[in-house]
Amino acid sequence: MKFKRSERIVYMTSYLLRHPNELVPLTFFVQKFDQAKSSISEDIQIIKETFLKEKVGIIVTTAGASGGVTFKPKMYKEEAESLIEHLIERLQENDRLLPGGYLFMSDMVGNPRLLGQVGELIATMYMDREIDAIVTIATKGISLANAVANIMNLPVVVIRKDNKVTEGSTVSINYVSGSSRKIETMVLSKRTLPEGSNVLIVDDFMRAGGSITGVMNLMSEFKAKVAGVSVLVESKEVKHRLIEDYTSLVKLSDVDEYNQSFTVEKGNCLNHFK
Amino acid sequence: MKFKRSERIVYMTSYLLRHPNELVPLTFFVQKFDQAKSSISEDIQIIKETFLKEKVGIIVTTAGASGGVTFKPKMYKEEAESLIEHLIERLQENDRLLPGGYLFMSDMVGNPRLLGQVGELIATMYMDREIDAIVTIATKGISLANAVANIMNLPVVVIRKDNKVTEGSTVSINYVSGSSRKIETMVLSKRTLPEGSNVLIVDDFMRAGGSITGVMNLMSEFKAKVAGVSVLVESKEVKHRLIEDYTSLVKLSDVDEYNQSFTVEKGNCLNHFK
Repeated sequence: MKFKRSERIVYMTSYLLRHPNELVPLTFFVQKFDQAKSSISEDIQIIKETFLKEKVGIIVTTAGASGGVTFKPKMYKEEAESLIEHLIERLQENDRLLPGGYLFMSDMVGNPRLLGQVGELIATMYMDREIDAIVTIATKGISLANAVANIMNLPVVVIRKDNKVTEGSTVSINYVSGSSRKIETMVLSKRTLPEGSNVLIVDDFMRAGGSITGVMNLMSEFKAKVAGVSVLVESKEVKHRLIEDYTSLVKLSDVDEYNQSFTVEKGNCLNHFK
Repeated sequence: MKFKRSERIVYMTSYLLRHPNELVPLTFFVQKFDQAKSSISEDIQIIKETFLKEKVGIIVTTAGASGGVTFKPKMYKEEAESLIEHLIERLQENDRLLPGGYLFMSDMVGNPRLLGQVGELIATMYMDREIDAIVTIATKGISLANAVANIMNLPVVVIRKDNKVTEGSTVSINYVSGSSRKIETMVLSKRTLPEGSNVLIVDDFMRAGGSITGVMNLMSEFKAKVAGVSVLVESKEVKHRLIEDYTSLVKLSDVDEYNQSFTVEKGNCLNHFK
């Protein structure tokens, strides 16, 4: 059964889209379609050029015996800007301000399409760093971490604030919450993160950065290197931030609980989009 | 700028893959490519046939003025069977059995590719039901719920076992855990689920079904209808199950904590794949 070029292209496009950041050997397609390598390379070239032209992402070709193609989804500046604008608009909707200067975001974090775009934006910023795992803190960060991990094709490691039997043996640390100054605990299952991993820390909300400092301390127990920190919302209210090097999608400030008013503006992430 | 058919096909395939279960008007592609509707329809036909032949999923064409195409990812029997086999194999690996008859699964639930396949399997079983939201329980169910929601293009609603300020005003219920017989609380933010929604409940592990019964009670507070219950692992140890109508991917039984032995077999989900 021979395949037409158009059929091959449909299949190869869908396969690459479903396997982002995974090296697919050319021989996989050669065997699948029983077609010469040169034809398959031509198919790939068409997909590659269309992906570039239409800003779907990048196809990286690796030469040699173990060579193949890797699809790297990439968000471009224009799309990143309009996503940030959309986030700002949504966050400014009525009744989002909660006691303590938090924002209600569960509906946004529960929207798979929006979350997918946020994941692509964060993945784009860190696509050239060597990263082995996405680390986050339960509960709010999990969905965001999944969205980033889906695109980067990396495992998600979830730190909990309580110790559950379902985690097996764990390592835990105590830390001081940056804004409330309360002592809290963080727990990570020993076998979820191999020693010496490079990790990207992702979370939904950062105030003083106490939780993320806690994560960093926990990471050093696992001899892990922190390759980056990215948050959906940072609160600018905080005078002394414990974390210096991070990216944020939006910034929250001028929180006035009495008048239910606040300001949302773009975070520093757009600096990564030239 | 005119587009070649092969370019159009690459773009349309990637667009549909990135927007599963979303009605895309044909006019969107007609305008994008400045091409006659008849040519776009031919392109769609090629994609549709290849998706069928290669078991990528189904493209549904809707006629009329507001007509368009919807890509419905679908898992076929063979793939479902090999996924279940793979899950059984992974779950039988050493050292997964934890005190209390639980299985360590954080690594599997943290694997985005595996989770994506599990999500596709569950989505396939419920693709013909009218569902408005995927409901799950923090923390373990969240990743699984996201995977299902990504494919079904539905919001995720997370029930918590503690009340957090970031949820805004909430509705809570008390329930009795089916196996430990402890009284626990479940909390759901009022505005995450509109009244009268049809929901699919997804969770990672079900023993007696106490948590899921709790979710059902909470759902009735929201006047929601439960359109289905799906779990990754069900424990067969339980004599009296509180939930009758559910799908499971795998079944755990013969748990012997002393000898660290147990049995994993396929759940009832494969009955849905003819």
